[in-house]
Amino acid sequence: MKRRDLLALIGAAAGSTVMYQAMTSLGHAAESGYGGPIKLDGNVKGASVLILGAGLAGLVAAYELRKAGYQVKVLEYGARAGGRSWSIRGGDRVTELGGATQECGFDRGLYLNPGPWRIPYHHGGFIDYCRRFNVPLEAFVQLNYNAYLHSKDAFGGKPQRYRHISSDFSGGVAELLGKAVDAGKLDDAVTKEDKEKLLEALRQWGALDKSFAYKADDASDRRGYEKDAGGGPDGAPTPSTPLTLSDVLKSGLWQGLSQAGRYEFQTTMFQPVGGMDRLAHALTQEVRALVRFNAKVTAIRQDEKGVTVRYVDTKTNAAAQETAQWCLCTIPLSILRQIEMNVGPKMATAIGAVPYVPSVKVGLQMKRRFWEEDEAIYGGITVTDLPIRNIGYPNSGFGTKGKGVLLGTYAIFQTFALEFGALDPAQRVAKAVEWGAQIHPQYRTEFENGVAVAWQRNPASLGCFANWTDDLRKAHYADLCAIDGRILLAGEHASYIPAWQEGAILSSLSAIERLHARVVTG
Amino acid sequence: MKRRDLLALIGAAAGSTVMYQAMTSLGHAAESGYGGPIKLDGNVKGASVLILGAGLAGLVAAYELRKAGYQVKVLEYGARAGGRSWSIRGGDRVTELGGATQECGFDRGLYLNPGPWRIPYHHGGFIDYCRRFNVPLEAFVQLNYNAYLHSKDAFGGKPQRYRHISSDFSGGVAELLGKAVDAGKLDDAVTKEDKEKLLEALRQWGALDKSFAYKADDASDRRGYEKDAGGGPDGAPTPSTPLTLSDVLKSGLWQGLSQAGRYEFQTTMFQPVGGMDRLAHALTQEVRALVRFNAKVTAIRQDEKGVTVRYVDTKTNAAAQETAQWCLCTIPLSILRQIEMNVGPKMATAIGAVPYVPSVKVGLQMKRRFWEEDEAIYGGITVTDLPIRNIGYPNSGFGTKGKGVLLGTYAIFQTFALEFGALDPAQRVAKAVEWGAQIHPQYRTEFENGVAVAWQRNPASLGCFANWTDDLRKAHYADLCAIDGRILLAGEHASYIPAWQEGAILSSLSAIERLHARVVTG
Repeated sequence: MKRRDLLALIGAAAGSTVMYQAMTSLGHAAESGYGGPIKLDGNVKGASVLILGAGLAGLVAAYELRKAGYQVKVLEYGARAGGRSWSIRGGDRVTELGGATQECGFDRGLYLNPGPWRIPYHHGGFIDYCRRFNVPLEAFVQLNYNAYLHSKDAFGGKPQRYRHISSDFSGGVAELLGKAVDAGKLDDAVTKEDKEKLLEALRQWGALDKSFAYKADDASDRRGYEKDAGGGPDGAPTPSTPLTLSDVLKSGLWQGLSQAGRYEFQTTMFQPVGGMDRLAHALTQEVRALVRFNAKVTAIRQDEKGVTVRYVDTKTNAAAQETAQWCLCTIPLSILRQIEMNVGPKMATAIGAVPYVPSVKVGLQMKRRFWEEDEAIYGGITVTDLPIRNIGYPNSGFGTKGKGVLLGTYAIFQTFALEFGALDPAQRVAKAVEWGAQIHPQYRTEFENGVAVAWQRNPASLGCFANWTDDLRKAHYADLCAIDGRILLAGEHASYIPAWQEGAILSSLSAIERLHARVVTG
Repeated sequence: MKRRDLLALIGAAAGSTVMYQAMTSLGHAAESGYGGPIKLDGNVKGASVLILGAGLAGLVAAYELRKAGYQVKVLEYGARAGGRSWSIRGGDRVTELGGATQECGFDRGLYLNPGPWRIPYHHGGFIDYCRRFNVPLEAFVQLNYNAYLHSKDAFGGKPQRYRHISSDFSGGVAELLGKAVDAGKLDDAVTKEDKEKLLEALRQWGALDKSFAYKADDASDRRGYEKDAGGGPDGAPTPSTPLTLSDVLKSGLWQGLSQAGRYEFQTTMFQPVGGMDRLAHALTQEVRALVRFNAKVTAIRQDEKGVTVRYVDTKTNAAAQETAQWCLCTIPLSILRQIEMNVGPKMATAIGAVPYVPSVKVGLQMKRRFWEEDEAIYGGITVTDLPIRNIGYPNSGFGTKGKGVLLGTYAIFQTFALEFGALDPAQRVAKAVEWGAQIHPQYRTEFENGVAVAWQRNPASLGCFANWTDDLRKAHYADLCAIDGRILLAGEHASYIPAWQEGAILSSLSAIERLHARVVTG
C-alpha cells in the first residue's frame, strides 16, 4: 500500500487530526521524491556493476552498490569526480572545446559554482547525503529585497531596488482590487461574508490606508524610507514616495517578482559551506579506489552475459576495456549519443532525442565587497535584461572586509548564452565587467580577475542539462528509463527534476533499486 | 550641504544617470540612519565621561569616547556586559524578579537569544561594528515557505504550510482581479495601455492559466505537489489541489503573510554566528578595563562642574560613588525612573512617560532536529494563535545530526506575554511544550530541557523595550534626547528604532556626537 493510500484510509476512518498525526509520524506530510536511505537487502550473488561517469549519480550508485555487496568499478572521463557538481578555485585549470584554457586566479577561500549553486529544502536526497556525510549547509539567499531589478529600457536604465517594485506592485494591485470590491463592483464574485475579510486582507497585505489607497506612510513600511529611522533628536524617518502601478507595469520589472515564490526557489535554500563540490568530494573519499579517472568511453557493448566497455586513457592514449555483468551509464545524453552502444531502438532513439541547454556563468573577483559596503546588498541576485542576465552576490562571509567573487553572468537557454559562449573566455569576462558596470559602476575600479564557463563547450557534457519538453517526455522518457538488457541509465536526464542535482541522485537511486530487484530475484 | 540636497542638485543639472552614478559613489542610494564610522576630531581637553549601563549603547560609547581621548568609566548593574543583547548557554544562571533562578541545561554549542535575534540588512551600524570587530554574520531565515501558519480554529487545528496559504491567497486575489479586469469591469480605473500588461502580470504573479483561473497544475509550481517529482520511471509529480480564496479568508491565516515583506523583516536578515552576544562580547574585550560590574546605581546628581553617581556593589552591598564631568546614561527608562536624579522637569517627565513592553521567550532543547528530519523545515518561524505565538527553528547547523534548540515561545505585548510571565519558569517551559506539541507532536518524545525569560521580570529592564506611540513621541521624545546640564541619555528608547539594537547603537552615536561638539567648542 502506498503511503498516500494509507493516509487516505486513516483520514476516512478516524478524521483529520488522527490523519495528521499519522502523516507526521510517517514523515513529511506531502510525499517527497526521496524515500529515505535506500535499502538494498538480499543476496547480490557477487554481481558486478560497471558505472560510467563519476558525477553525483555515479558516485551515489558506486557508494550504495558497494555497500550492498556488489563488485563496482567506475570509469570517469575527467581528472576529478563530481561532474557538473563543481566549484572552481584559484589555481584550477579549465579547458573547453576548442582548446581554450583558463587558470583561475581567485584568492584562497574564494570560489565559483559554475554549475548548480542552490539546493531547495525539498531536495531531500541531496540534503540527506549531506547529513550522512557531514557536509555542512548554509542558507543560499535567493531573494534579496535590497538587490536590483534592472532593465536598460526602464527608469532611464537605473536599477531599482527589488523592494520598491515588489511593494509597489502589491500595493497597486491591492488598491485596484480593494477599491473595486469596496465599491461593490465584484459583488457577483465575492460573497457578503468574504467581502469584509477580503478587504481587511488586502489592506494588510498591500499596506493600504483606510480608504484603500497605497500611500507613502504605510508604503514605506514595505518599500523603505527616503531617510531611514535613526537615533537621537534627528532620528525621525522620512517616508518614500511609491511608484504608480502604471509605472511598474510599463517597466516590465514585475517579471522579476515571481521566481522567489516558486516551489523550486522558495526559502529555505542552501549551499554547501565552501563550495557545491563538497558533497561530491565527500562521496569521492568513500569510493575513490573504485574510480578510474581520465577514461574516455568509446564503445559500450552488451550480450547475454554482461557488458564490455572500451575506453581510452586520455593521458596516455592507451586503449583498454572493462567488463561487468551490468552497466549503469550516467554519461550525459549529449555525449552518449556519439558513443557506439548496442541498446535497442527505443532507448537509442530516446538517447538521441533530447536537446541540451546552453548556459554561461562568469565569476568575477573584486578587490572589496562593494555591494555590501556601498549598497547594503548581502547575498541574493540582481536580475537584468542585459546579456549577463543575473548578478549573484556571495552568500557567505557577510560583512567581512576581504575580497569577494561575484557571479557576473548567468545566461541560460538560447540567444545570450550562445552569444556569450561564442566569445573566448577572456572576452566573456571582459563583457561581464563592461555590462555589469552599468549596474555597479564600482566594477571599473574593483575588478581583479575572472573565470568563464560555457557549458555548451564543456567536453564532458556539451551543454548544461537535458531540455525535456512535455512532448519529448511522452515520446521517450519511459524508454530512456527502462532496463535495456544489461544496461540502464541514470543522471538528471533520467528524472523529472532536470538540471538539479536531486534529479541525478533520485534517478540513480531509482536505477539501482530496479537493478537490485533484477539481481536478487534473477 | 546634506547628501540628498547635493544629489537633487546633480539630478537637476545633469539628469538621472549622472545622479545615479553620484548616488552610488556616495554610498547607499537612500540615506541610511548610520553615517559610517563616527569621527570625533578635536581636543577633548581631558574631559571625563561616566557611562551608566554596559549594553550595546554603553559599550559603543565607551569604545568610541576612549578612542577619541576621553577618560571613560562604565558602571554596569549585571555581572556581564551586553544587556539585552544576550545569549543563554548551558551552565548559565538566570535569576529574575521574585528570585526564581534557572540553570540552563543546554548542550555545548547550543544557545537561546532571549532578546534580539535578527538583524535587518539596513541596520548599518550593527553590521559595521560586526565588520570592524570581525564578528561573523550568517543568514537569519525570517520566512520559510515550508514552516507553518497555524490557528486552533482553522482547518481543524491542523497547521498549514506557509506556501499553501501564500500561493492560494495570491492565486485567488490574482484570479479575482484578473477576471474582473478581463471582463472590462475596471475599465474606468485601468487604461487600455496598462490593461494588457496588468493581465499578463497577474497571470505570472498569481500562477493563473490562460483564462485567469488558479488551478492545480500551475498552482503546484508555487504551493508544491501532492507527490514531488522524482527520478526514474515513476518520477512524475502529482499536482496538489489549491484551497479556495474563501477558505483562505475564513481561516484568518492570511494575517501571517505580510511580515516577511516589511522593511524590518525583509531578506537578507542576519544573526551573528554563535549567538547574538558576539558583538557585545567583542566590544567588551576592548573596554573591559573601564567597566565596573555588579554596580547598582542608586542616585545620579549633577551640578555645574560635573556628575556624581552613587551605587551599591551587589556582591558586597558596599556603597560607593563615581564622578565625572559628563554622564551618558543608558539605563532603561523603566529602571531609571526609580532612581533619584536631578534633571530638569521636561526630561524627568519624559523618563516617566514611556511604558515598557512585556515579552516572553522560551528555549527548548530537543534530542534531535525532527523539524528538519521529519518535516523539512530548515530555519524560519511557525506562526500560531496559541499562546506560544511563534516557534523559531535554528538558522544554523542545517541538516546536522545532533540536538537542537527551538524557540518554543515568543509572546510579546499584553495578554499572552503577561500570562506566560505570571507562571514560574518551569511552568512556562512545560506550557511551551504542551502547546507546541499541538503543532509538532514530536515534542512529546524529543523534549529534554528548557529555559524561559520573561522580560517584565528581568531586574535590569523590567520589560523588553520602550513602547513609544505617536502621541508619546510628540510630547516627550525631544526632551528625552536633549542634553540636560551634564547628563544625556542613550539606548533603544532614545531612538526611532525602538526594540532594535540598531536603535541603541545609533542613539549612542548621536549622543556622543552631540556631547563631543559641546566639549570641543565649550
